[in-house]
Amino acid sequence: MNGFSEEITLEGHIIDSGILSKVWGTIMDLGGEFDLQEIRVGRSKNETSFARMKITAGSEAQLHRILTALQDDGADIISRGDVRTESAPIDGGLPDDFYSTTHFPTQVRLDGHWVDVSGTEMDLVMVVDRANQSAHMVPMADVRQGEQVVVGHEGIRILPPQRSRSRELFSFMGSEVSSEKPKRLVIEEIAVLMRETRSHGGKILVVAGPAIVHSGAGQYLASIIRAGFVQALFGGNAIAAHDVESALLGTSLGVALHNGEAVEGGHRHHMIAINTIRRAGGLRAAVDLGILREGIMYECIRNGVDLVLAGSVRDDGPLPDVITDMAEAQKKMRAAVQGTEMALMIATMLHSIATGNMLPAAVKVVAVDINPAVVTKLADRGTFQALGLVTDAELFLRELAEALGLNGD
Amino acid sequence: MNGFSEEITLEGHIIDSGILSKVWGTIMDLGGEFDLQEIRVGRSKNETSFARMKITAGSEAQLHRILTALQDDGADIISRGDVRTESAPIDGGLPDDFYSTTHFPTQVRLDGHWVDVSGTEMDLVMVVDRANQSAHMVPMADVRQGEQVVVGHEGIRILPPQRSRSRELFSFMGSEVSSEKPKRLVIEEIAVLMRETRSHGGKILVVAGPAIVHSGAGQYLASIIRAGFVQALFGGNAIAAHDVESALLGTSLGVALHNGEAVEGGHRHHMIAINTIRRAGGLRAAVDLGILREGIMYECIRNGVDLVLAGSVRDDGPLPDVITDMAEAQKKMRAAVQGTEMALMIATMLHSIATGNMLPAAVKVVAVDINPAVVTKLADRGTFQALGLVTDAELFLRELAEALGLNGD
Amino acid sequence: MNGFSEEITLEGHIIDSGILSKVWGTIMDLGGEFDLQEIRVGRSKNETSFARMKITAGSEAQLHRILTALQDDGADIISRGDVRTESAPIDGGLPDDFYSTTHFPTQVRLDGHWVDVSGTEMDLVMVVDRANQSAHMVPMADVRQGEQVVVGHEGIRILPPQRSRSRELFSFMGSEVSSEKPKRLVIEEIAVLMRETRSHGGKILVVAGPAIVHSGAGQYLASIIRAGFVQALFGGNAIAAHDVESALLGTSLGVALHNGEAVEGGHRHHMIAINTIRRAGGLRAAVDLGILREGIMYECIRNGVDLVLAGSVRDDGPLPDVITDMAEAQKKMRAAVQGTEMALMIATMLHSIATGNMLPAAVKVVAVDINPAVVTKLADRGTFQALGLVTDAELFLRELAEALGLNGD
Amino acid sequence: MNGFSEEITLEGHIIDSGILSKVWGTIMDLGGEFDLQEIRVGRSKNETSFARMKITAGSEAQLHRILTALQDDGADIISRGDVRTESAPIDGGLPDDFYSTTHFPTQVRLDGHWVDVSGTEMDLVMVVDRANQSAHMVPMADVRQGEQVVVGHEGIRILPPQRSRSRELFSFMGSEVSSEKPKRLVIEEIAVLMRETRSHGGKILVVAGPAIVHSGAGQYLASIIRAGFVQALFGGNAIAAHDVESALLGTSLGVALHNGEAVEGGHRHHMIAINTIRRAGGLRAAVDLGILREGIMYECIRNGVDLVLAGSVRDDGPLPDVITDMAEAQKKMRAAVQGTEMALMIATMLHSIATGNMLPAAVKVVAVDINPAVVTKLADRGTFQALGLVTDAELFLRELAEALGLNGD
Repeated sequence: MNGFSEEITLEGHIIDSGILSKVWGTIMDLGGEFDLQEIRVGRSKNETSFARMKITAGSEAQLHRILTALQDDGADIISRGDVRTESAPIDGGLPDDFYSTTHFPTQVRLDGHWVDVSGTEMDLVMVVDRANQSAHMVPMADVRQGEQVVVGHEGIRILPPQRSRSRELFSFMGSEVSSEKPKRLVIEEIAVLMRETRSHGGKILVVAGPAIVHSGAGQYLASIIRAGFVQALFGGNAIAAHDVESALLGTSLGVALHNGEAVEGGHRHHMIAINTIRRAGGLRAAVDLGILREGIMYECIRNGVDLVLAGSVRDDGPLPDVITDMAEAQKKMRAAVQGTEMALMIATMLHSIATGNMLPAAVKVVAVDINPAVVTKLADRGTFQALGLVTDAELFLRELAEALGLNGD
Repeated sequence: MNGFSEEITLEGHIIDSGILSKVWGTIMDLGGEFDLQEIRVGRSKNETSFARMKITAGSEAQLHRILTALQDDGADIISRGDVRTESAPIDGGLPDDFYSTTHFPTQVRLDGHWVDVSGTEMDLVMVVDRANQSAHMVPMADVRQGEQVVVGHEGIRILPPQRSRSRELFSFMGSEVSSEKPKRLVIEEIAVLMRETRSHGGKILVVAGPAIVHSGAGQYLASIIRAGFVQALFGGNAIAAHDVESALLGTSLGVALHNGEAVEGGHRHHMIAINTIRRAGGLRAAVDLGILREGIMYECIRNGVDLVLAGSVRDDGPLPDVITDMAEAQKKMRAAVQGTEMALMIATMLHSIATGNMLPAAVKVVAVDINPAVVTKLADRGTFQALGLVTDAELFLRELAEALGLNGD
Repeated sequence: MNGFSEEITLEGHIIDSGILSKVWGTIMDLGGEFDLQEIRVGRSKNETSFARMKITAGSEAQLHRILTALQDDGADIISRGDVRTESAPIDGGLPDDFYSTTHFPTQVRLDGHWVDVSGTEMDLVMVVDRANQSAHMVPMADVRQGEQVVVGHEGIRILPPQRSRSRELFSFMGSEVSSEKPKRLVIEEIAVLMRETRSHGGKILVVAGPAIVHSGAGQYLASIIRAGFVQALFGGNAIAAHDVESALLGTSLGVALHNGEAVEGGHRHHMIAINTIRRAGGLRAAVDLGILREGIMYECIRNGVDLVLAGSVRDDGPLPDVITDMAEAQKKMRAAVQGTEMALMIATMLHSIATGNMLPAAVKVVAVDINPAVVTKLADRGTFQALGLVTDAELFLRELAEALGLNGD
Repeated sequence: MNGFSEEITLEGHIIDSGILSKVWGTIMDLGGEFDLQEIRVGRSKNETSFARMKITAGSEAQLHRILTALQDDGADIISRGDVRTESAPIDGGLPDDFYSTTHFPTQVRLDGHWVDVSGTEMDLVMVVDRANQSAHMVPMADVRQGEQVVVGHEGIRILPPQRSRSRELFSFMGSEVSSEKPKRLVIEEIAVLMRETRSHGGKILVVAGPAIVHSGAGQYLASIIRAGFVQALFGGNAIAAHDVESALLGTSLGVALHNGEAVEGGHRHHMIAINTIRRAGGLRAAVDLGILREGIMYECIRNGVDLVLAGSVRDDGPLPDVITDMAEAQKKMRAAVQGTEMALMIATMLHSIATGNMLPAAVKVVAVDINPAVVTKLADRGTFQALGLVTDAELFLRELAEALGLNGD
């Protein structure tokens, strides 16, 4: 192939992580050719590897496509220029060739220097502040007219996660644990990881769905919060309303949690719970007034957990604490997510996907659901830091509380 | 049992509909006794039945519980007084013993006369306007301080759906059709019902999820809209963004719809689509400008379909047409729902549940999803008007378009 | 309707059990009419009810269809003659109008006397031995030429299960417990019921799938067997082979059960396990020789459990203890099922359906699976004695062992 | 690492197929090291690659484990001796270190020459006939005392599937197509592949479950058979019995296929169907006698399809054509599988797994089921020749018949 060529290098655990294979595949898939000019393979677990190769394509456009794709794979393109930017044409609107971010750490080259881009998150855009020599990832809607938005693919460096061969919870299992694998062991390892994370002051985020309360597992989650294992909790109106219902009336969705029976007239109970909190002026006020004395919400408030309740179109009420504007809710979640080291997503798809989109690749994610399709969606993060467990949320939380040394009952 | 008693009557297709059995069961479950004083059983399909019985309970409170429960079952309590109301204590807050509505037609007794309550919807409250002798169902959050909210159970009459023995699509199947039953026949009957509904000018609502676009079935839904079978369409940011992506770039989530292959760099496509519409100023503007020339959104706009796009916390962008405030979105949906005779809910749980909550029991509901748990949730409406189909949304829409005489391809 | 009529009576908890409603529905569905001539409704939980009605149909054939259908509903047809029989035309072949059994207790009238039919099981036929005034349910294939097979619907009486209003585990839940309900409570009630059953010497049957071993829950089931809670165990080659694999090699399907990691070369392990048992001469021989020293199979053999391993077309090996002929396997299962009071079906569809078909309606059935569709199939027995739990088999067994006071770990 | 080392080579599409990465991973996972001594990377789609490396391990046993594992990955171990064998100790029993086969083409070295092993199938053992210089894969149970069974790992060469970069149906999709991807396109490609296969006389196998008949899709499968697209069909008693039921009585499981309604007394219908065929003497006799005139079984018999009906422990009847002995059934299936180029597995897990275990890796497999877990199990064959489709079997077959140019209705 005569034509347009450019050289790239790859370095790190590029073999263990499958990055080298992926790069070769990408080049061939996109119709390019490559000439392997140098390869040094790490022979043991801790040695890194290095490869240098020349990419050739039939046209400039094709070469561009290949290089852009390789960039997402983590290839470093040799002797490139600075990052390019264009002005945002309107508030909340982008120049045509805007660069859409990944959830990997990213750098841009400004005046010949590589600069870390702050606020790592997928599907955002990058705005460069040339005066301060800084760059930030921001949602499309937050871009203001005239801001310098990164376009094209030059001067951008992505640092995808690399995996060494040392055995870890988050890699040995692959990304998904079916219900037919031994999960008790995994739960114990999750508990170990939570303890380690807390021992160095790391932040743990829980995203929780209402089935936790319906199934009577609210008590286990409450005890985990009380013990200091949760720094931020995301959910919706439903988990909060039913948690309050269970604290005030002993039911969830009208089903008595002490014996599993439907209570006559119980369909009103969550409305009563919501009304009670509305009249008190909110969850915190209800705690302060002694109305709300137990449960997940109570423990969040008493233990200073960063609680974000994001509304949805199906909400009854809602509770006054629920943020009904989605832009506002995302802003609060984005703020609360900062610094998270570990995230547990339990029995909720909507809020988990929303949260997952905001989490950098490096955050350790545990997704638990009884529906394999949900687990697959959540655990498929293109990282070695996500673990999906197909199991029952009630029994999972009971086992987790036990593995953390808490008496759930 | 000595004690507190009251007489009730039941009338209509109370045997075919199982109402009589349910009433007997409720009385016994709640610890009461009954004395059947009169029964006339309709002997054929069209004759109605009648029963009169005396309920006895051990305490006033127990009798109250039983009567309240029977009311939801459709029992008419003889010689009752007027409906009782209390003032709402604050804006968006209710008196303690507020009455929570069902999705059945409901009447309240004002000055000895039975008055229809407007705005039938589940889990709302009823506000009485004594000056105008009228009553309305309203969401808790919309109640203003001082308004007269219905409390207790007296003077309220519910008219649950009754089923005669004549064979109908929405009863013969039970409420759920598993993937192992003949669905082609059901799809043909749905098409017949859609035609009948439209022939007398009835309104059809579609609630649609993004998998319709991902699976390449957007074209079938578009043709169904173009043919005039859809008067209102509810969805979220995802279906709209991917529909625009498919119209502009030929992909959905970066997968080419003409051959199913992932397009390199395709993960940016939905962002490009959203940006394009943002810059145009919205979907209608994009249609007017000739930018958007096909697809579901295009057909909605060209055919005057009442389109409500309700946001969620997981949205990218979003499109300018997406309502990000949930209270506002519910208000728009509630308005658009009025007069609906038939609703199709396809491959979306969130928006379908939101919509289902707003629909009176009399609306014919068809819920389609490949996940049996979703179908069960949506089709379990306590009516004989809901039909759940466990099947593939892509092939369902293809068959439906064909059964409606449209050439999908 | 002029025409053909006959009188039926219904007696018992016909209202609580919904039998009366069902009968009325059946008559109307089949185009008949009825005249309610007498009704006495039990007013409290323990009082039974009585109804007598005259059925009228437009033709003899229609009346016949209605009466046959009502019989399955439990109606007693007044002034009927003896049961009719015809000779089986060939071995394993039936006369045209053969009667196909239900899983309810059944009686036939011989010489004016009602005789219990032995061997209650669904989808069998009844053979009458007039000499001994007895009748038996037998599989079609076991009928010998010339035997007297029951035909038509006369002289047959079915006693469907009736439910009084007293609260019981197996009715309050409805037949299915979703993963979103509190299951811990249900597990405790199952443990109570197992204890009660054993305290009066009742027989408990477990049907078990290989996921129990794969998930590391074999130890819990082994401890439940060791404690005497299991009198019969049904399974296939897979659970037995992997149980042996875990006992001999510490893996299941090549995955180490002490840490969840795949062992290199582990795909051979179940073959090694099977070969070892084949060379020993079978499971009992392997126990006697001290080769097999722990696990589910070991405990079954040591504790005199009636073990039936039925083969399937997908088996490797198989183990010498596996019955490869299906007629033989069914015969063994049918024998072992006799006298069972309670059956637990855990994480296996094939063997559970096979077993469920053989169990009389009165047997209490608990079906556990993570797949809701499987649970629905197994728990849908038309009785008030079946309970389905959508949950994780590993954690279920761990909780059950704990609730039975056994230390699983 | 001082120690024990050996050299291996890899050749072919080892990069595209991920074999090289896998080999490197395996070595490191098992604690070895490697020295890459030569690498030549194919630069374009059709060029193959080559790698030579020296493996070092700390002990002989470790080196042995590594080499055995690499062999399964397709590595060729340089300068190895002949294959080793030991005598089978008893009928149906194996020597300790027996070699367990993969479903990849395999060769053994006899007297310095590489010989193809016949009967490729997973989880079998290899028996060498030194007199004839041949080797065969056989099930454990069929090995006779004294036969020479291959042991250890020397002198064995495996040829795993390699994938070049050319786009193919069976690779571009990955192995699984979720219900949210465009399936209509895939169905068209399957039809093209079926046509191609038949145009050169290739053999197509269908494994079919009873839901095909229950859902009314039997007509489509029948038309596909009639058009000559099926050379072998595997199923169980259920699909055959219900197919006959539908042909004779117009119902499946008692549900009328022309309108989806349950027929009163329909639960007897499959028993009537089975009895009719038993009395006729079997399916072929019923066709010859003019009793059976349409349906899947009819078309199989009329079109010379190799029909294998394998029984299971849950069968009613069964039909006389059903093989009740599992060893016999496997033998028949194994024979019928020979020469198959393409296999469609539709709506049956048991028979599909049984069949999948028997198919060499090179056979193109299409697995269709509405349950994603089943599809994952069937399509996960470690080859690039398996395609799983999560969709509705009824609509799939309707679309497939249409794509094959057949009028399904």
